[in-house]
Amino acid sequence: MHVHHQSPGQSADSVTIIEVGPRDGFQSVGPYIPVETKLDVIGALHAAGVRRMEATSFVSQAALPQLADAEQVLAGVGALRGLDAQVLVPTVRHAERALAAGADHLSFVLSVSERHNYGNVRRGTLASVNDLMQIVALMPCGTRMRVNVATAFDCPHEGRVEAGAVLALVERLALVIHDAEFALCDTTGRANPAQVAALFQAARDRFPQIAGWAFHGHDTFGLGAANVWSAWQAGVRCFDAAVAGLGGCPYAPGATGNVATEDLVWMFEQAGIRTGIDLGRLAAVARDVVALPGAQTGGRVRDALAARACLPAGTVAA
Amino acid sequence: MHVHHQSPGQSADSVTIIEVGPRDGFQSVGPYIPVETKLDVIGALHAAGVRRMEATSFVSQAALPQLADAEQVLAGVGALRGLDAQVLVPTVRHAERALAAGADHLSFVLSVSERHNYGNVRRGTLASVNDLMQIVALMPCGTRMRVNVATAFDCPHEGRVEAGAVLALVERLALVIHDAEFALCDTTGRANPAQVAALFQAARDRFPQIAGWAFHGHDTFGLGAANVWSAWQAGVRCFDAAVAGLGGCPYAPGATGNVATEDLVWMFEQAGIRTGIDLGRLAAVARDVVALPGAQTGGRVRDALAARACLPAGTVAA
Repeated sequence: MHVHHQSPGQSADSVTIIEVGPRDGFQSVGPYIPVETKLDVIGALHAAGVRRMEATSFVSQAALPQLADAEQVLAGVGALRGLDAQVLVPTVRHAERALAAGADHLSFVLSVSERHNYGNVRRGTLASVNDLMQIVALMPCGTRMRVNVATAFDCPHEGRVEAGAVLALVERLALVIHDAEFALCDTTGRANPAQVAALFQAARDRFPQIAGWAFHGHDTFGLGAANVWSAWQAGVRCFDAAVAGLGGCPYAPGATGNVATEDLVWMFEQAGIRTGIDLGRLAAVARDVVALPGAQTGGRVRDALAARACLPAGTVAA
Repeated sequence: MHVHHQSPGQSADSVTIIEVGPRDGFQSVGPYIPVETKLDVIGALHAAGVRRMEATSFVSQAALPQLADAEQVLAGVGALRGLDAQVLVPTVRHAERALAAGADHLSFVLSVSERHNYGNVRRGTLASVNDLMQIVALMPCGTRMRVNVATAFDCPHEGRVEAGAVLALVERLALVIHDAEFALCDTTGRANPAQVAALFQAARDRFPQIAGWAFHGHDTFGLGAANVWSAWQAGVRCFDAAVAGLGGCPYAPGATGNVATEDLVWMFEQAGIRTGIDLGRLAAVARDVVALPGAQTGGRVRDALAARACLPAGTVAA
């Protein structure tokens, strides 16, 4: 195993799971989820031990009506003690909205793939780098930034993304801001464990000045947990996940969402690596999330915990 | 990564996937599957490139009526060129049946956990070691043996199984037969990647005389692929899997089956490791298997391949 170094404040046997269900998860749900329900879920996640969360996204209300209540959600999470709540901001204008609403941890997104960046935020990748520069200039002292590098492994339009293109973009981004957390995102879920380990090893070796690394994965092809484990072996200690594997797309059965938070908590805790999250309480939240109208969910642990041990006498099992 | 040595006939970048759907998968299906249907599935798997298979099990017909046609299945697979078809035999009596039916590759199973062994084959673990000794004495020259060490990581009754207990049992077994393939089986799906790597590293270091190692995993807790990848990193090159993730238990929702063959083929091929199996043809077989009455299925890749790429413009995706 390759464990290069640890993020500050973490022991070798702990990881930080960043709950992105309220952003990446809820945004995929069709029927509007009332802000009270969102805050109930967020509060229950906090009560289960979640201490980092992507709470909402400041985006076009026309494009994503589900997240039109970003200001209210951000105001609501302020009451939760010790919660580090980041909010997604894809452009300068939305960053201004987020800062005006009191956000102290921004999460910026841009894609290695030009075409994906156009589809996602309607501008080229270098225009997004310029946006980031302007946002950094706007940030009051003490505001933190996480940079999400989308399509870092694979693009829905262009296929496999080469590591060289990712590293070249990170190099530009590191000139704009180096005291940010950088997340390499498997947007399509088509990354494989060898690719994940290789990219993080290369990135960490090449950019020692970058403060922290995170991995954002999807379980679409069943490799959500395997890729997270591989990133962990490459020294990554921060992982995005969505409660109940929330996400997916109403138009495409099988295009599942983020790796499920409860699956990662299970994996790490079973391996003796602390997450700070109570699996039983988290699974209870996950079952409530499954019941939300329009929720597309994934993950295994929720049902496996609910099922009783099953090996009737006389079955030949291996 | 720890890659100690390779099995004969395999390059560093290839693995052998052993399809266990016709045994571990079919045995969990309630309604009887006609032998013709079984042979159709087996033939289609062979046509997709599968060259090792656990084709059936010689067990008590009262306990497992689904596999009462073992002789007919074994006779049928004989026509498939280049297929190495092993058959499960839990006791001396059933091994005698299998050998009389012409089996040339036996697969024996016993559990580290006394209690699981009693539940599974109605005798203690050392009685099973004695059975293996008698079976080895019966085997004509050229007959091969695979030994499945069940509950090698976790037991449904006793919980976590210590590595020392597994190694002590393997030591006894290696005195009985050393030119067998030994499979360490995660019977409950509760193994984690750190545990899988540690056990295989310890076993391979301690028993260099053992000809080959295999990993048999279940995806019940979402770690099927992660555990396989971890075993691969520890030098294992043979993996059990069931088409469509077949398995599970009709009495326990969520108690899912073996890791899906198509998920492993996807993972390895994406990582540049050859399986010899055509994923498109395999996925087509998997979809037919899903349609079998009473089939409980799992895996992600089948649906993900069927779903169209899904990233509508204006969605903010990471």
